Amino acid sequence: MEMISQNKCFGGQQAVYKHTSAVCGVDMTFAVYLPPQAKQESVPVLWYLSGLTCTHENAMTKAGLQEYASKHGIALVFPDTSPRGDGVADDDAYDLGVGAGFYVNATQDPWKKNFQMYDYVVKELRSVLQGAFPICECHGITGHSMGGHGALTIALRNPSLFKSVSAFSPIVNPTRSDWGRKQLSAYLGDDEALWAEYDATILLRERGWHGDILIDQGADDQFIDLLRPEAFAEAAAAKRQPSTLRMHAGYDHSYFFVASFAAEHVEWHARRLKASKRQGRSTNE
Amino acid sequence: MEMISQNKCFGGQQAVYKHTSAVCGVDMTFAVYLPPQAKQESVPVLWYLSGLTCTHENAMTKAGLQEYASKHGIALVFPDTSPRGDGVADDDAYDLGVGAGFYVNATQDPWKKNFQMYDYVVKELRSVLQGAFPICECHGITGHSMGGHGALTIALRNPSLFKSVSAFSPIVNPTRSDWGRKQLSAYLGDDEALWAEYDATILLRERGWHGDILIDQGADDQFIDLLRPEAFAEAAAAKRQPSTLRMHAGYDHSYFFVASFAAEHVEWHARRLKASKRQGRSTNE
Repeated sequence: MEMISQNKCFGGQQAVYKHTSAVCGVDMTFAVYLPPQAKQESVPVLWYLSGLTCTHENAMTKAGLQEYASKHGIALVFPDTSPRGDGVADDDAYDLGVGAGFYVNATQDPWKKNFQMYDYVVKELRSVLQGAFPICECHGITGHSMGGHGALTIALRNPSLFKSVSAFSPIVNPTRSDWGRKQLSAYLGDDEALWAEYDATILLRERGWHGDILIDQGADDQFIDLLRPEAFAEAAAAKRQPSTLRMHAGYDHSYFFVASFAAEHVEWHARRLKASKRQGRSTNE
Repeated sequence: MEMISQNKCFGGQQAVYKHTSAVCGVDMTFAVYLPPQAKQESVPVLWYLSGLTCTHENAMTKAGLQEYASKHGIALVFPDTSPRGDGVADDDAYDLGVGAGFYVNATQDPWKKNFQMYDYVVKELRSVLQGAFPICECHGITGHSMGGHGALTIALRNPSLFKSVSAFSPIVNPTRSDWGRKQLSAYLGDDEALWAEYDATILLRERGWHGDILIDQGADDQFIDLLRPEAFAEAAAAKRQPSTLRMHAGYDHSYFFVASFAAEHVEWHARRLKASKRQGRSTNE
């Protein structure tokens, strides 16, 4: 693991690393923010999964999460959105291939060689982080757009690994959307039954979630028809799923929206992760 | 108008009045809370409509709204849930007739003579309040269960009269629920097309709302299947309606739930009503 950069930020350290991913078969870049509290103790960690066309960098520089992570004493991790570099398959469209991993394990050529983003996040990077940084086993996950899809689906499928989940403007029903059908078909093949594991609305309906879920959405989001918030809203209410679903007048799909509600998401996770950490500690005592 | 009782409460006055309702054809009781600020200036007012079996009294004594109304400087009004007394039609069931007005204008016998709760709230009591108390024309409305249904339907049909709306555990889709079909049939007759004017989900879908909407719901509400929050959640998201819909783990249908979130509802309304009052004032200047 090689450090690419490090900058002091809100009393803590914002760093970027490169490592060789066995799962994706290429070097992958990710960013970690450690709050000042991490000098004294292991801290909970909040994953932030980014959207289409993004790298680890967009949220790190534009979402403004570090201020609140510092205040609440939690770490942040920003993975990349796909493998990239020489030999990695790509497509001319911005929404397939590089920058558009959709957090799935591809089973189809030419994608399956490198596009294993689900396992990369859930298994490999998680393990790397746990060994390298002063973080405890209290993980929360959030994300934006395609990354909101990643956060919800990964959490719903791994309730023992993730204690809290939220999302900004997530793609919540990709099996019924042009942001989803094309990619799931390319990565997983034509058997739509296999797509269900990557659809937050279907997963919620079938499995529920052990905690509560926070989702913020801009009412003037230019991509809202592709996100299908109505499908998740109906499923959450029908499931009696503890949740807070907010539709905000005037906000669009940009990072200006994410930044506007970053404080509340970090606080939401921090409260739940710290409660989980306390509970773990008292169980051990 | 006769004052029945008056008690000092959080620096203001909680009073109960009786007046003769021309619309309902009987004497009606209602309660008004005036915050201390009402001694100096006209204040915004938040209506609270109660649920099945309630009178003006339940929320007045159990919801704990006065503390926050005092803090934010807004008045509260608690109407009764139906006409009652000698000569008023009733039914053996708790959910029809006295205590179960559903905030409709009945067109069918034996109800139509007295059960005109929609007009009573929207026209008559509103006019009575405006003439008798130091309140400005900034009205918000909330309610619980059948009263949440009343609040949502009355606001959605009268966007110029109400600046803000929220609800606790509302009946949101009575045309598809046993808390609704029986009553709408009795009060309005069998033509279901006429029921749509009293269904918040249908009204929202057709008309939208000029502001944002706050709804809190208990996930362990024993009546939740009758409330149908999934119908309103789907409609709100599909409409891209600015809204905050919260499903709270562990809470039931009782006033212990209402009281737990009373502070947030009063603050929600106070912010919007005061902004509306400021805007009105600057328009007049």
